[in-house]
Amino acid sequence: MLAGHRTWIFDQKPVITATGTVGGPFEANGMLADDFDLLHEDLWIGQDSYEKAHQLLFEEACQKAMEKGGLRKDQVQFILGGDLINQITPTSLACRTLGAPYLGLFGACSTSMEGLALGAMIINAKGANHVLTGASSHNAAVEKQFRYPTEYGGQKPPTSQWTVTGAGAALLSGDGKGPRVTSATIGRVVDMGLTDPFNMGGAMAPAAVDTIEAHFIDRNIEPSYYDLIVTGDLGEIGHAVSLDLFKKHQTPIHETQYKDCGIMIYRKGQPVYSGGSGAGCSAVVTYGHLLNQMKKGEIKRMLVVATGALLSPLTFQQGESIPCIAHAVSIEAEEGDS
Amino acid sequence: MLAGHRTWIFDQKPVITATGTVGGPFEANGMLADDFDLLHEDLWIGQDSYEKAHQLLFEEACQKAMEKGGLRKDQVQFILGGDLINQITPTSLACRTLGAPYLGLFGACSTSMEGLALGAMIINAKGANHVLTGASSHNAAVEKQFRYPTEYGGQKPPTSQWTVTGAGAALLSGDGKGPRVTSATIGRVVDMGLTDPFNMGGAMAPAAVDTIEAHFIDRNIEPSYYDLIVTGDLGEIGHAVSLDLFKKHQTPIHETQYKDCGIMIYRKGQPVYSGGSGAGCSAVVTYGHLLNQMKKGEIKRMLVVATGALLSPLTFQQGESIPCIAHAVSIEAEEGDS
Repeated sequence: MLAGHRTWIFDQKPVITATGTVGGPFEANGMLADDFDLLHEDLWIGQDSYEKAHQLLFEEACQKAMEKGGLRKDQVQFILGGDLINQITPTSLACRTLGAPYLGLFGACSTSMEGLALGAMIINAKGANHVLTGASSHNAAVEKQFRYPTEYGGQKPPTSQWTVTGAGAALLSGDGKGPRVTSATIGRVVDMGLTDPFNMGGAMAPAAVDTIEAHFIDRNIEPSYYDLIVTGDLGEIGHAVSLDLFKKHQTPIHETQYKDCGIMIYRKGQPVYSGGSGAGCSAVVTYGHLLNQMKKGEIKRMLVVATGALLSPLTFQQGESIPCIAHAVSIEAEEGDS
Repeated sequence: MLAGHRTWIFDQKPVITATGTVGGPFEANGMLADDFDLLHEDLWIGQDSYEKAHQLLFEEACQKAMEKGGLRKDQVQFILGGDLINQITPTSLACRTLGAPYLGLFGACSTSMEGLALGAMIINAKGANHVLTGASSHNAAVEKQFRYPTEYGGQKPPTSQWTVTGAGAALLSGDGKGPRVTSATIGRVVDMGLTDPFNMGGAMAPAAVDTIEAHFIDRNIEPSYYDLIVTGDLGEIGHAVSLDLFKKHQTPIHETQYKDCGIMIYRKGQPVYSGGSGAGCSAVVTYGHLLNQMKKGEIKRMLVVATGALLSPLTFQQGESIPCIAHAVSIEAEEGDS
């Protein structure tokens, strides 16, 4: 099951039997609106705080996944998830409603693939028949906590990114029909000394490259094995930095083969600076748009590399540089699928 | 591997080959001082912030475990850990130093056993030869964040608890000599509507009881199977509430068999109110004192039930009750050990 230093090969190939994706108003105007199960017209979603709205996003994504997978709440054995809010309370409170045993994760925006890797590990080892895993973020809740309340109307530099309001969840099972989770490479903390919290993409790119290159060494395959390699939320700047690093390291990854969820999710002209970000970004793009593409046969094999900046407002204030991480999971179309 | 609804049986019985425990000045004056590998005389540990001191605690605990286990940094394949600080930055920054691939966890004070359960899952599935897992807390860093800076000298009610300054880490391997991790029961979020953040023990007790009772049903064993059942940090009040609930449910757990890490760690007369708490509490007591007792043959089988209150200052301010969780892991002396 272990390949190389830090890659797991899932010989049972756990199946993503269903997914749920929920978005907010900004995502409804984005490039991938058609790929969401549910879109909300406003950021409050009928709640009296952004954090409660955030919680509801995750609840709804999980409920959608269960509904589409034909499973009742009590058939889900474990939920693995997390978010960016202090003490990941939106996810924990959602799990109070959802009811299943819960493993709380914190990997910042890498949480989606941390959860999918660990969920696949559990299913592969027959530690469960069905698990739910996902991640979420809420623009106004996250901005308020990490930077300023959006109501202040603060200015941001073009290197900054726009936190996605959205939640994506996957129902992972030991059998059934759907895309298969075939391997995972766990990231280590990479910190190149960058300190600007308005340029997370640039800070996270080396972590993404480190994990992607480790994946190919550990699995002893070439990048051409995948139709698509997609990072979580590096945005325009981080995506460009990654491509530069691949070139420098002579890693044969072509521009056409390498995308970023943070670039894909919004439309040109939306004021999202360098692109989307947030723990929900890679979750909604992967569990919505990309798996839909896989169902249509447009992608057969992909490597999803969720990237996280493990900083906090406090570490920034204390002069720390930004520790980053990236976890990669390979998802492949079931044999015989179109 | 799955027993009942939410219990994993580890048939490979992963081995705790070594542990590391580090404490602060309050712990040095406590009941279990002799069981620490390293004790610091002051809370700053030579750092210029409590958070950096917190980070160092975890680094040192991991280093001690590696040193005692005779492993180099690069032989540890994964680190699973977390703490209570926003975005678990002390653990993430420690992993920047430690270097191994890292899976960040958030289970509040239940993190120690969440990590041991997942670490054992990975070792059992042959996803690694060696993993490190642990949890930590720092009294002044945690108090500052969740309540008031201790320098304010704020008063607390007797139901409150004293956050442990300490870190405990376990080196878990596929083979070797030492206590075995035999099973784990994952907790669900239990919230009985309590809202007082100065009575966490009372709030967490029902979650502990829920997980403990599920463990016996899932494994189809009686509580008498264990020499010791120990909760993480319920303190005097939570411990009494748990005993009441066991009685009410006719669960045959005797007072002599059931202890709490938060009660054990400090000496009578130390001003710790209802007892110790914090993510480091169950980690240092389990990986120090209790495993030492197991080595001496005083305990053969124990069930460690780390308990967590998944609230944040914000959820409290927003009027939420306290969502709680508990994860249980059974540790048994190796066959043939004294």
